[in-house]
Amino acid sequence: MRLAEGLIFASDTRTNAGVDHIATFRKMHVFEQPGDRLIVLLTSGNLATSQSVVGLLRHRCGLSGDCLLTVPNLYQAAVLVGATVREILARDSFNPTAGQSIDFGCSILLGGQIQGEEPGLFNIYPQGNFIEASVDTPYFQIGEAKYGKPIIDRVLRYQTPLKEAAKCTLISFDSTVRSNLSVGLPIDMMLYRTGSFTAATICRIDGSDPYFNQLRKGWGEGLRKVFAKLPDADWF
Amino acid sequence: MRLAEGLIFASDTRTNAGVDHIATFRKMHVFEQPGDRLIVLLTSGNLATSQSVVGLLRHRCGLSGDCLLTVPNLYQAAVLVGATVREILARDSFNPTAGQSIDFGCSILLGGQIQGEEPGLFNIYPQGNFIEASVDTPYFQIGEAKYGKPIIDRVLRYQTPLKEAAKCTLISFDSTVRSNLSVGLPIDMMLYRTGSFTAATICRIDGSDPYFNQLRKGWGEGLRKVFAKLPDADWF
Repeated sequence: MRLAEGLIFASDTRTNAGVDHIATFRKMHVFEQPGDRLIVLLTSGNLATSQSVVGLLRHRCGLSGDCLLTVPNLYQAAVLVGATVREILARDSFNPTAGQSIDFGCSILLGGQIQGEEPGLFNIYPQGNFIEASVDTPYFQIGEAKYGKPIIDRVLRYQTPLKEAAKCTLISFDSTVRSNLSVGLPIDMMLYRTGSFTAATICRIDGSDPYFNQLRKGWGEGLRKVFAKLPDADWF
Repeated sequence: MRLAEGLIFASDTRTNAGVDHIATFRKMHVFEQPGDRLIVLLTSGNLATSQSVVGLLRHRCGLSGDCLLTVPNLYQAAVLVGATVREILARDSFNPTAGQSIDFGCSILLGGQIQGEEPGLFNIYPQGNFIEASVDTPYFQIGEAKYGKPIIDRVLRYQTPLKEAAKCTLISFDSTVRSNLSVGLPIDMMLYRTGSFTAATICRIDGSDPYFNQLRKGWGEGLRKVFAKLPDADWF
């Protein structure tokens, strides 16, 4: 989410290649130079591709040439990530032993702030091109996005305060976790206040987190109460 | 939905082949012999395939041989529909001028009751095989199902009264209509009470329906109130 007060990043940690290959991987990746820039990547899709993309981006931060710690603005950061996605796909997606049905693609959200700019948020497609969030559309989702979208559409606006947006984010994830096995706890979450350029802290929220449990319980009970109060149909 | 009191069927009416080919088609199809049976089909997926399947099933009701008005039970009805799906796909899906990316498949829900049996509900896959709803899983969705699933998962049980389940159905559709352009009003809806075997009435619910509007408004306002009452995160 790219909001008036700053940015929110959240990702679950479940990966799967069929129900018997479920594992826990961090999908949130931070590139930072305190005081100068914070860039966060969230990944979904093929884990081999997204790991290689992030690994290569990180590896190149020590070498000469453009990297996420040196690009002059977020737009160039998105260009760089998109190019790296294409590079990995060109290397890996031709595989004579692979079945035709394997999807090597990955989607990446890139957000953050670089000195001299406002914060920004980009949605980088598997093809390497991308779009940027705006005041009208202040958030992006990738991966298993649909279950958790209605609550965001109902309450989130560009002006929503960060802490309220964080609440919305967790409720949205809860809806998805309940309805789809491919999304699972813990959730990694980061709030970034515009202009802070500070080293970011990722909160890891698991099933024992008291605030998350309070939200889950309160939201579920609240929904059922609203539902119960609405009148039944009289036209049957 | 297949519930203790009976069955609920609901379908939207929007079809699309890209955003510039949007049209309104009924996706609910009724086969009935008052006093003996009621069979309802809900379709999603490729409209050419689903129209041909339903058309062929209806055409054959006047001919000799098995048809939906003569099969001895719902299981055989599902077998017949699955076989008809395969028949149409075998005819239509080889097309030398078609691009490789066209999905000819359709999914069909079949529900109803035949004298001598309890009501039943089947989910027929594009491959023609199928599964049946149970007390543990009393509902199926096909098509654009994810946005509207969380509310059903939260409130629907096998014992939920029909009128309450109808309310849940409309709220679920509202969530989907708000989040996805490919689903649109009006909604066709039918309630069937176990053992009635009566001619069914399909209610068509459009944007001017007072009850639907009351639900949309009450649900949206209720959700926002519950959301506002939940505490913001204190760990940032």
